[in-house]
Amino acid sequence: MENLALQQLLKSFLQEDIGAGDITSDAIFSPSEIAQASFIAKDHFLCAGLGLVAAEVFRLCNPACEVEAIADSSRVAPGEVLLTVKGPVLDLLKAERVALNLAQRLCGIASLTDQFVQQVAGFDVRLVDTRKTTPGLRILEKYAVRVGGGHNHRFNLTDGVLIKDNHIAACSSILAAVKKVREAVPHTIRLEVETEDLDQVRQCLAAGVDIIMLDNMDCATMKQAVEIIGKNAISEASGGVNLSNIREIAATGVDIISVGALTHSALAKDISMRLTTV
Amino acid sequence: MENLALQQLLKSFLQEDIGAGDITSDAIFSPSEIAQASFIAKDHFLCAGLGLVAAEVFRLCNPACEVEAIADSSRVAPGEVLLTVKGPVLDLLKAERVALNLAQRLCGIASLTDQFVQQVAGFDVRLVDTRKTTPGLRILEKYAVRVGGGHNHRFNLTDGVLIKDNHIAACSSILAAVKKVREAVPHTIRLEVETEDLDQVRQCLAAGVDIIMLDNMDCATMKQAVEIIGKNAISEASGGVNLSNIREIAATGVDIISVGALTHSALAKDISMRLTTV
Amino acid sequence: MENLALQQLLKSFLQEDIGAGDITSDAIFSPSEIAQASFIAKDHFLCAGLGLVAAEVFRLCNPACEVEAIADSSRVAPGEVLLTVKGPVLDLLKAERVALNLAQRLCGIASLTDQFVQQVAGFDVRLVDTRKTTPGLRILEKYAVRVGGGHNHRFNLTDGVLIKDNHIAACSSILAAVKKVREAVPHTIRLEVETEDLDQVRQCLAAGVDIIMLDNMDCATMKQAVEIIGKNAISEASGGVNLSNIREIAATGVDIISVGALTHSALAKDISMRLTTV
Amino acid sequence: MENLALQQLLKSFLQEDIGAGDITSDAIFSPSEIAQASFIAKDHFLCAGLGLVAAEVFRLCNPACEVEAIADSSRVAPGEVLLTVKGPVLDLLKAERVALNLAQRLCGIASLTDQFVQQVAGFDVRLVDTRKTTPGLRILEKYAVRVGGGHNHRFNLTDGVLIKDNHIAACSSILAAVKKVREAVPHTIRLEVETEDLDQVRQCLAAGVDIIMLDNMDCATMKQAVEIIGKNAISEASGGVNLSNIREIAATGVDIISVGALTHSALAKDISMRLTTV
Amino acid sequence: MENLALQQLLKSFLQEDIGAGDITSDAIFSPSEIAQASFIAKDHFLCAGLGLVAAEVFRLCNPACEVEAIADSSRVAPGEVLLTVKGPVLDLLKAERVALNLAQRLCGIASLTDQFVQQVAGFDVRLVDTRKTTPGLRILEKYAVRVGGGHNHRFNLTDGVLIKDNHIAACSSILAAVKKVREAVPHTIRLEVETEDLDQVRQCLAAGVDIIMLDNMDCATMKQAVEIIGKNAISEASGGVNLSNIREIAATGVDIISVGALTHSALAKDISMRLTTV
Amino acid sequence: MENLALQQLLKSFLQEDIGAGDITSDAIFSPSEIAQASFIAKDHFLCAGLGLVAAEVFRLCNPACEVEAIADSSRVAPGEVLLTVKGPVLDLLKAERVALNLAQRLCGIASLTDQFVQQVAGFDVRLVDTRKTTPGLRILEKYAVRVGGGHNHRFNLTDGVLIKDNHIAACSSILAAVKKVREAVPHTIRLEVETEDLDQVRQCLAAGVDIIMLDNMDCATMKQAVEIIGKNAISEASGGVNLSNIREIAATGVDIISVGALTHSALAKDISMRLTTV
Repeated sequence: MENLALQQLLKSFLQEDIGAGDITSDAIFSPSEIAQASFIAKDHFLCAGLGLVAAEVFRLCNPACEVEAIADSSRVAPGEVLLTVKGPVLDLLKAERVALNLAQRLCGIASLTDQFVQQVAGFDVRLVDTRKTTPGLRILEKYAVRVGGGHNHRFNLTDGVLIKDNHIAACSSILAAVKKVREAVPHTIRLEVETEDLDQVRQCLAAGVDIIMLDNMDCATMKQAVEIIGKNAISEASGGVNLSNIREIAATGVDIISVGALTHSALAKDISMRLTTV
Repeated sequence: MENLALQQLLKSFLQEDIGAGDITSDAIFSPSEIAQASFIAKDHFLCAGLGLVAAEVFRLCNPACEVEAIADSSRVAPGEVLLTVKGPVLDLLKAERVALNLAQRLCGIASLTDQFVQQVAGFDVRLVDTRKTTPGLRILEKYAVRVGGGHNHRFNLTDGVLIKDNHIAACSSILAAVKKVREAVPHTIRLEVETEDLDQVRQCLAAGVDIIMLDNMDCATMKQAVEIIGKNAISEASGGVNLSNIREIAATGVDIISVGALTHSALAKDISMRLTTV
Repeated sequence: MENLALQQLLKSFLQEDIGAGDITSDAIFSPSEIAQASFIAKDHFLCAGLGLVAAEVFRLCNPACEVEAIADSSRVAPGEVLLTVKGPVLDLLKAERVALNLAQRLCGIASLTDQFVQQVAGFDVRLVDTRKTTPGLRILEKYAVRVGGGHNHRFNLTDGVLIKDNHIAACSSILAAVKKVREAVPHTIRLEVETEDLDQVRQCLAAGVDIIMLDNMDCATMKQAVEIIGKNAISEASGGVNLSNIREIAATGVDIISVGALTHSALAKDISMRLTTV
Repeated sequence: MENLALQQLLKSFLQEDIGAGDITSDAIFSPSEIAQASFIAKDHFLCAGLGLVAAEVFRLCNPACEVEAIADSSRVAPGEVLLTVKGPVLDLLKAERVALNLAQRLCGIASLTDQFVQQVAGFDVRLVDTRKTTPGLRILEKYAVRVGGGHNHRFNLTDGVLIKDNHIAACSSILAAVKKVREAVPHTIRLEVETEDLDQVRQCLAAGVDIIMLDNMDCATMKQAVEIIGKNAISEASGGVNLSNIREIAATGVDIISVGALTHSALAKDISMRLTTV
Repeated sequence: MENLALQQLLKSFLQEDIGAGDITSDAIFSPSEIAQASFIAKDHFLCAGLGLVAAEVFRLCNPACEVEAIADSSRVAPGEVLLTVKGPVLDLLKAERVALNLAQRLCGIASLTDQFVQQVAGFDVRLVDTRKTTPGLRILEKYAVRVGGGHNHRFNLTDGVLIKDNHIAACSSILAAVKKVREAVPHTIRLEVETEDLDQVRQCLAAGVDIIMLDNMDCATMKQAVEIIGKNAISEASGGVNLSNIREIAATGVDIISVGALTHSALAKDISMRLTTV
Repeated sequence: MENLALQQLLKSFLQEDIGAGDITSDAIFSPSEIAQASFIAKDHFLCAGLGLVAAEVFRLCNPACEVEAIADSSRVAPGEVLLTVKGPVLDLLKAERVALNLAQRLCGIASLTDQFVQQVAGFDVRLVDTRKTTPGLRILEKYAVRVGGGHNHRFNLTDGVLIKDNHIAACSSILAAVKKVREAVPHTIRLEVETEDLDQVRQCLAAGVDIIMLDNMDCATMKQAVEIIGKNAISEASGGVNLSNIREIAATGVDIISVGALTHSALAKDISMRLTTV
């Protein structure tokens, strides 16, 4: 993750939560009072973003904060300490909510990703995210997917090509659409086309498409598609994937499964902050 | 919601998703091609943010977009049209993902809030949110809570006072902490203190606290607390509230129930965009 | 005051004053030349913002600047040293004007507030500011009011409620307006209503208003209002308050006196910078 | 004044004052209610910034606001209407405070400038401001000085040269300092040197200085300086200028008088907004 | 090109050039004076950015500007009109320099690209740019390359993979580096490896690399490389390409030739603005 | 150059080039791996911006980077080391392209300026730049001109006056235009008027113009103009100046020669980065 962009983002989050100051704590504590705080897991989950994100929130509030954090991808149980930070109590309290909100969300995404990855254990398949991320948090959420054992699909509309039904309709054929797009986009990017049936899959192969998205196909059709495609393109299953059906989808032999749920349906993991004045 | 802040936020979301351009669509469509798009509900839910937020995303992409949207708080069923927009196809496709991601999330929050509100029907109790919102989205998420029939707790650390255990510990008594904070903060703000047992509740009353938070108390204790408080302060239940226990909590007679889940555990509602070129 | 917001503000002030560089000093001094500068009071006044604001301006120009500053609320006489800073002469000269302009203004506000506070010595009344601050400087000016012994009224339109004549007119009665607003706003915020006569005061009490603003009332009426209100609401005198009439207003027994003059009519205190090259 | 910079500035002021929304007005008015508002003078003064600044504040809140404003430099009496605006009542109330705060301040500066200008009527002298402006408001305040009949000194450290005692000391002589600076700075900028006695004035002339600042000189000395300078440089009186002594200073024959008080000591003029719903 | 990003960029350019206002023109023209301006070519070249970029600069200065501009890729001769704009003379003069500076630069890049493209006429080869663009102008310069008939290489470090000697050295072999990167990056991106000799080319093929960069190879070696590669990867010539040697390079049969000179060595084309008041 | 503005600029350049991260390097290197990099000259040229700009790019990527750089104005030969930096290899690779792109461009401008300055050796003439700079890079490019031995013309439309034909036409005479502008602009700024023939030159002298621009005059006319002007104004040659004709122009005796080519036609100098892991 790019550090300058991360810092700018975290600063805006802190300003949203702090406003003009923490009027409760400012009334009680002086800037010189030092305290220690710990983040405690209240559940079992897979960690993400403690060291890179939550720790940085404390340091941005005050560079004098000394933070230690658990490694990404650690599996934790209730009661485990995820992060300890020592610094001015005023800064610990100002950073608390933003650091927790982010850590809980990122752990949630990493843990859900991990669950999906567990489901396809044994298959040579790559689990990827989508652009269904929380607006403003894409770099953070895609990072959490990677921590959870998943991979990223394109980051935005510039760094990947996905030709959908409207694009095809406008060009009258998959071949025509592919040609038009191939001619326009950097040679460094693979072309992906969304297909709904085997006929479209065959058209894609004929057009030399790099990645063929099998969108909302049933597993039987998907299996056939995978066979038709062979080594001539990358196959990507997409649409309606959940923890119950992903193993069956993986069994069709697809190379990639994209799951919007990784980011749009992950629930925050429960973490609390315990503060002890020194 | 403040419009200048909203627009700035939505522009940053669009830039995150679009990057340097939609290389797929830019290769296929010309800027003059006009299309029409509709947002279709794929589930039953309560609407929020279609007219104020999603519509604005399209207009920011291109002021020439003509948008009509369903009113906030409408209850919809699968297949219902939530928003229609007519404009350059290139702009519809650039705005699509951001508009959908936001609408789905806001409908999710409003719908979950609505579910909680239904649960306490008949009780004179106010359901409120917390600061456990998605970083960067607080004004949007607190708006969705209101659309769903809930109310807002403080917006940030400046516009509300919440005296917690660490504050009390630092002053050695609730009375001392309340005095110190009352002296420092604007007279326009009510003082709230977090309590864990009835003894603390009584100390709050003696200190003239405006709002007494009953944190993680069992319902029997909470009921006693409500009786002790009477009309002398506002009582607020907090901690571990969910759809199963909220009715029992409301039955204790508390004035306010705050629920972090409204924002940290709402799942996105399923909405899709259908596009037809004109 | 929130540090991230403060730094961003001060950086924008420095860029306004420096432009592309100090072409005079850049022509004469090299970046390695070190100097020492002192801020000297040219008048009697109460200090505000030397340590928190002016010192930060120097550090933002160059983190290598070593600054020591007089404590907030110190009373100084002509010739007294308010701040000393050692650092590259080029940075001292670039920071000079912004640091002085801010310090002079904040000392002016704190000193005027102090004068008002002196006037009401012996009365149990709280002096508060208004939203009549310099655009862009609100967090700084409200801070100076606190340093001067005053208190803050609401910070912006989100963190306080003030129901004025237009609001009442639109609802046809104070009761109706209060009900409508109470239902909409967070329970953490007290409701304030602007009144012009005793009848309105009585309506406010009947409506359970938290704070009753007595706007531009003569002292006799105000006194009656205070008696009518008793302990049932907070009374706030407002409108046309100045150093000559504030003591008489305080004698009416009001709880709060709000004074726009604290920020809109404070004059800058005279401070000069003396620089000695090392 | 540059419009893009102005708009950005005004937007930041609105966000400071509005926060997340006007919770009082939002509870009472609907976005479709239209009202009319007028700015009314409560005193005699010279107008500045109604049409260019206050009107723009309303338009930024909502481009649908129709505003008419009094021309800059108009002299008004109590009760006169300075600006009328018709638009959504919610937007009028959100814009009110920022528009008033700015208009009051700019009218204050223009009026004070006007008073100074009146004092030197009949003399061929130019009254100029300094860099002692409110941080963040320089373009606005220097504009108000021009409206009041004054002129601007340099805008920032880049667009003017002022060689002071520290610069001279570092070069050991005025001549050396002037040579060094002349060599470095654009030929489009005049060189100004601060002098404290006639000897320094003579050194400036010998060095071919364009503008000689006569800093804190008594009027007798200043008169001699003006004679010595003749047509060979522009003379600028500076330091401790006020309404009582400016005429005497002008009588010395100086070309320019710079007055920090124009911006650091102007008091806001009293203007109120009257709102009538339509 | 993404419009929101473009507008933000152009606004910052205008502020850089205008500062606090055009003091010359503001002294002479009133805001109501309308004029007409034309951009005239002073040389032969290929146009880029008149309609999309220069026209937008005028509209940002004042939305009332009516602009017509020549189509991208038009070939023009001295004296031809490239753009006409009608609007307030003050805004035309404020926009002039930024609009010209951008148009001249973009036409320069498009024209140089066009020259390179002409040189390889008849070969099935794609000419691409690099990241050697002017900082801050990448989206504009890469757009001009496309207008000139070239194509884009990766836009930034996130949307393309280029494995160089240091990456290989750190992994001890091309195969190891490719495996590590393939595992980490999105499946939507092609892997490119920089090679210096035929041995490395063969290693790339064995590792299944998508794009093989032939860096600074002589044409004979390059030809062999192309033969070795066949249809198994895309070949890209890079390093020291200029107008004299590009045809010979194209003759080796490479698929892609990347040319840093397109952006780092294009000279601005001569365009002047002629203004006639109406 | 102003440091806060510089840092903000460089951060935006880094974000443009890095995007969401360097996906190639992030896959291979860990944040703890330290490396050393050197910038090597591939040509003969005059250095500018290595220490002030390129070094700062590395430090902004990671403050732990230790950088040493060659002094501005150093003349270097192929193979010479211009900058060495030690730090995390990931940060060296992220900073590389931006640091190089800037250094190459600034060295190009300084070197071209130097060439022009060499051409006029022996003449008492000042070479100045224009506003024909790359949008967004003006402070950097004007700095490089100074490093190369040139001087700066006005920085933007606010800090210099240039009265052109349209301004004159609008006032009907040079005298009228000069009067109008002189009355409006700060006394700290010299007035410059663009002239096309000797008659206009004489009008300028009569109007007391400070700087007379001789625009696109042939050398014979220019020589006459210089004689007419004498010591009564500064003469500035402008228009179509290149390395072949500048010496002849200087021989006319003009005080200033302004050359747009310094910034719009300088080519980047060739510099490469060599990286060795430690």
